[in-house]
Amino acid sequence: MARFAALQTHDVRFPTSLALDGSDAMHPDPDYSAAYLRLLTDAGDAGHGFVFTIGRGNDVQVAALRALEGHLVGRDVDATLADLGGVWRELVHDSQLRWLGPEKGVMHMAIGAVVTALWDLRAKREGKPLWQLLASLTPEEIVDLVDFRYLTDALTRAEALDILRAAEAGRAEREARLLAEGYPAYTTTPGWLGYDDDKLARLCRQAVDEGFPQIKLKVGADVADDVRRLRIARAVCGPNVRIAVDANQRWDVGEAIRWIKALRPFDLAWIEEPTSPDDVLGHAAIASAVAPIPVATGEHVANRVMVKQFLQAGALSVLQLDATRVAGVNENVAILLLAAKFGVPVCPHAGGVGLCEAVQHLAMFDYVAVSGSTEGRAIEFVDHLHEHFITPVDVHGGRYHPPKAPGAGTELHRSSIVEYEYG
Amino acid sequence: MARFAALQTHDVRFPTSLALDGSDAMHPDPDYSAAYLRLLTDAGDAGHGFVFTIGRGNDVQVAALRALEGHLVGRDVDATLADLGGVWRELVHDSQLRWLGPEKGVMHMAIGAVVTALWDLRAKREGKPLWQLLASLTPEEIVDLVDFRYLTDALTRAEALDILRAAEAGRAEREARLLAEGYPAYTTTPGWLGYDDDKLARLCRQAVDEGFPQIKLKVGADVADDVRRLRIARAVCGPNVRIAVDANQRWDVGEAIRWIKALRPFDLAWIEEPTSPDDVLGHAAIASAVAPIPVATGEHVANRVMVKQFLQAGALSVLQLDATRVAGVNENVAILLLAAKFGVPVCPHAGGVGLCEAVQHLAMFDYVAVSGSTEGRAIEFVDHLHEHFITPVDVHGGRYHPPKAPGAGTELHRSSIVEYEYG
Repeated sequence: MARFAALQTHDVRFPTSLALDGSDAMHPDPDYSAAYLRLLTDAGDAGHGFVFTIGRGNDVQVAALRALEGHLVGRDVDATLADLGGVWRELVHDSQLRWLGPEKGVMHMAIGAVVTALWDLRAKREGKPLWQLLASLTPEEIVDLVDFRYLTDALTRAEALDILRAAEAGRAEREARLLAEGYPAYTTTPGWLGYDDDKLARLCRQAVDEGFPQIKLKVGADVADDVRRLRIARAVCGPNVRIAVDANQRWDVGEAIRWIKALRPFDLAWIEEPTSPDDVLGHAAIASAVAPIPVATGEHVANRVMVKQFLQAGALSVLQLDATRVAGVNENVAILLLAAKFGVPVCPHAGGVGLCEAVQHLAMFDYVAVSGSTEGRAIEFVDHLHEHFITPVDVHGGRYHPPKAPGAGTELHRSSIVEYEYG
Repeated sequence: MARFAALQTHDVRFPTSLALDGSDAMHPDPDYSAAYLRLLTDAGDAGHGFVFTIGRGNDVQVAALRALEGHLVGRDVDATLADLGGVWRELVHDSQLRWLGPEKGVMHMAIGAVVTALWDLRAKREGKPLWQLLASLTPEEIVDLVDFRYLTDALTRAEALDILRAAEAGRAEREARLLAEGYPAYTTTPGWLGYDDDKLARLCRQAVDEGFPQIKLKVGADVADDVRRLRIARAVCGPNVRIAVDANQRWDVGEAIRWIKALRPFDLAWIEEPTSPDDVLGHAAIASAVAPIPVATGEHVANRVMVKQFLQAGALSVLQLDATRVAGVNENVAILLLAAKFGVPVCPHAGGVGLCEAVQHLAMFDYVAVSGSTEGRAIEFVDHLHEHFITPVDVHGGRYHPPKAPGAGTELHRSSIVEYEYG
């Protein structure tokens, strides 16, 4: 009987601020980082997970991973992997740790990394990529992963089962299509705020040439700059490539409405993070004022209870689920079910460190077994840091092509850890 | 010119779970703890602050305090203390650290402890208790403490100034009355879920004898138990002592409505934390369904943006501000101004470790300089762990009597730190 033998952690930081990759209106100088963990069994295998951060504080995130060691080490591996819904509840509802959130911030994200590491191990043991493992579960097994606490006024277990059963029929056909054609992507590579106009134009051209149907530009620091940059991007991209913009929480509600109206001439695919990610009512007011421009958010939305309210309030029409913001795979399954219930498309946030590698599994699972659609959906793509992962994404022709290697896509090369370990 | 010389931290844990003090429906076995910091100057004085936690994870909270060292050490003390609004913005909007929230959870609470330590030092240097220091500032100085980002759709700087100017007239008279009569208190001492019926009845009797106009009982684990305990409490207290109940986030929305209706016969002062503290819309639905029973929440509400929405949505009618949940004194000043704008009474959460000592300053400042009223207001009181503080609260006759010692009330005895330092 195998047991978990150790929880090893690493503070890994890439010096991305040197090139202003990832620069936006609120985060001018990120150093893309991972609070990384390796959960080893005494059978010799391991699961890998991480929380993405942007530099300072990655050590705090690592301390939070360490605080979960007592929940895992010594525990039976098979029994744990067979009940990941139960493990999720145990970790999230730990009666003392929950005070540190509850269900938000550093402690919640740490639980997410541990949960995802468990899924990575399970997928490796079952010889499947995570998306295929999840899509092979029965509707009952899937709802068992979800904690419906605080959700039942919007989504009950029975309703979730109905959604999953309705999607059962076409699973095999969609899986085959996914393997053949891939999943739509869009790229944020051209649009970082720190890039000059020439670099912007060059990268827009390159995105179009590579077949991306959508790009995204950072906005929000200066409205005249935004108008100029959008004009350049629209000129290079032509009318048929969608252009989304992302304000990274820069505005208050009234300011957001005024600013977005100034950007209207450029046929925006969506406006992302116009204000505080906690402000459900603010997003609802903005969405109503700038309609029909869709409002998107999600990468900083702390948990499924917040997602529930964004959906209930009609405060977003594009849900940007993030692989490491919430408590891991299980909570993202809950979020996918909520989105399906409300008929809102999920366009996952990615980029950062390994977010593309991790989140594609969730979007592909959604397509095969939950929403059953890629309509109005695309996974964000940013072309950096993939080389540090054992199973980097395969994005070409403007699409994510499904990973085939077993696991959750979350394992870093040892050499990358050694090279970029901080401190 | 004095500079900050060191940020010292301590992981202090009191083994309160042994006696089930503090036990409730979601936290059956808390070990009341403080992630404690001492901010030393090279002039030899220091400010003290802490985050209250309930045990496991206090080490993570300490790691978050440590992550702020670089912002403070080496910095000019006078300039820092003269611009605590600016310091707040710098810490909360640190472009890398904010990713760990943003503005919520472990990192946000750590910023709160640092900010409060700075206020403690400033109050000591000015020879005033914090409440009196805050109440001596001009309206302009007070609004300069507040970051209105994300608030302006509900409260502008100009509106906040109007509120403060309107309260300027009666300041001296209210301060004199406060010093003479104290501030209303209510006690949670009788009501912990882990206490048996005899202990409940005995402590209710004692609370009435001590002059408390209100008590509070924990509920939410079992409805029959709740009815029995409320019957006992109401019998002992008689009809004139108010009885509030606290579910500590135990219920979903529908369940909350049904459960609260079952407790209606007992004339509840309020129902506290009926569901997730993130669920603004859920609280609004509950408040509407159980009216006229007031809904109360706040101790786990992560920041001023969430408070803003609770007020906008009519989701609470009693706001339970907490001294260490948000980013310190400055954010609580913002919250007091929001509450004043919406005409909602603030009844601060207290208990824990040092929360009574800390939060009384905010309520007293509110009375003297913001809302100008104690109507419908009371500060929670729990009679434990006060002996560990240099300036323990003075609660008698059912009222908090204002602290007169300089500082924010946040300094622990060295001997308590030594005795209860963890690990």
